Amino acid sequence: MTNRQVPLVVIKRLPRYHRYLGELLDNRIYRVSSTELSEKMGVTASQIRQDLNYFGGFGQQGYGYNVQMLYDAITALLGLNKGYKTVIIGAGNLGRALANYAGFSKRGFSLIGIFDTNPALIGKEVSGQIIKHYDDAKDFIKAEKPDIAILAVPKVTVNRVAEDMVSYGIKALWNFAHVDLDLPGDVIIENVHLSDSLMTLSYRMSEFGERK
Amino acid sequence: MTNRQVPLVVIKRLPRYHRYLGELLDNRIYRVSSTELSEKMGVTASQIRQDLNYFGGFGQQGYGYNVQMLYDAITALLGLNKGYKTVIIGAGNLGRALANYAGFSKRGFSLIGIFDTNPALIGKEVSGQIIKHYDDAKDFIKAEKPDIAILAVPKVTVNRVAEDMVSYGIKALWNFAHVDLDLPGDVIIENVHLSDSLMTLSYRMSEFGERK
Repeated sequence: MTNRQVPLVVIKRLPRYHRYLGELLDNRIYRVSSTELSEKMGVTASQIRQDLNYFGGFGQQGYGYNVQMLYDAITALLGLNKGYKTVIIGAGNLGRALANYAGFSKRGFSLIGIFDTNPALIGKEVSGQIIKHYDDAKDFIKAEKPDIAILAVPKVTVNRVAEDMVSYGIKALWNFAHVDLDLPGDVIIENVHLSDSLMTLSYRMSEFGERK
Repeated sequence: MTNRQVPLVVIKRLPRYHRYLGELLDNRIYRVSSTELSEKMGVTASQIRQDLNYFGGFGQQGYGYNVQMLYDAITALLGLNKGYKTVIIGAGNLGRALANYAGFSKRGFSLIGIFDTNPALIGKEVSGQIIKHYDDAKDFIKAEKPDIAILAVPKVTVNRVAEDMVSYGIKALWNFAHVDLDLPGDVIIENVHLSDSLMTLSYRMSEFGERK
């Protein structure tokens, strides 16, 4: 199975497929039709069939899809079977919320360290990890080689922290500071802008208000 | 100016336009060319011109765009000038992180209450608000009429909480529990799935690894 030809729009739907198929498995449902999936996903059944054909076509006429096989294929495609190791930089409310985030380990990621500069936080435990000083991040990262750094630091410091991470050998950043990080080289960056979704909500409310 | 004909794909870009234009204003830059915007936004200059024409076309040949006018138009289009009032349900790490989220009030939203059921949290202050018991949310919401309830509660309780909110008169939900809420009626829901973006990151890492 190659994923070279999978269009971006299909890739973007993968996490949602993964979520729904996982819920089906949790509910011990092992078989699903494209019609049922289509209702859950909010796209047409023919779109579902097209999407899933990219992943090897696990559907059988009159039977539907084998949920476990489809789930496993999408898990592999998303790299969730790689056991990626993560560190969190910033142990404020957001950093601690992310550390405690249940979906994290369920999706194959392991948290191996959490760092901050605030003396009031260092030494405290969160999600089984003792918060360490940021000054110790360099040696730790060089020794333990985590794959992903999760940046839960303020906007004003995030650029410096991101550069530090890259210089310590980190290849992927999951950034929650409200700025689009854009670093040179082969670093993979995913910027999360919580306010974007709040603004989408607000747009829909305001549009709805006008419609009435 | 009507927003009826603005395509969804353009709407989805609005928060990003808003963010970049806001950064320009912060840096006292009052004029921008479509080429400059295009580099920042990562879409073509002709796409930028097309997008912005939907909002009244504030560009002038040889001058570029008036940043403030464009920013104000997009602010209004996104409903960020409506002064929407919010409450947060759930004062755990995520709820407190959201309460302290700086981009919140900057974008015209005000937080008027935060609720939890955990006795250890009730009475504590977060972001200028005293955490109240969830049992008091009903009377509070009926009296104060917030526009948006931000749901930072566990997956297992979110459906009940969402139903409560709607029955108290809330018309919009910003949901952080890892489930796609889908309520009957005219409630506007925006579901945030943090793990979706983590999975996208993971997909890109795994794809990149194979490419090497």
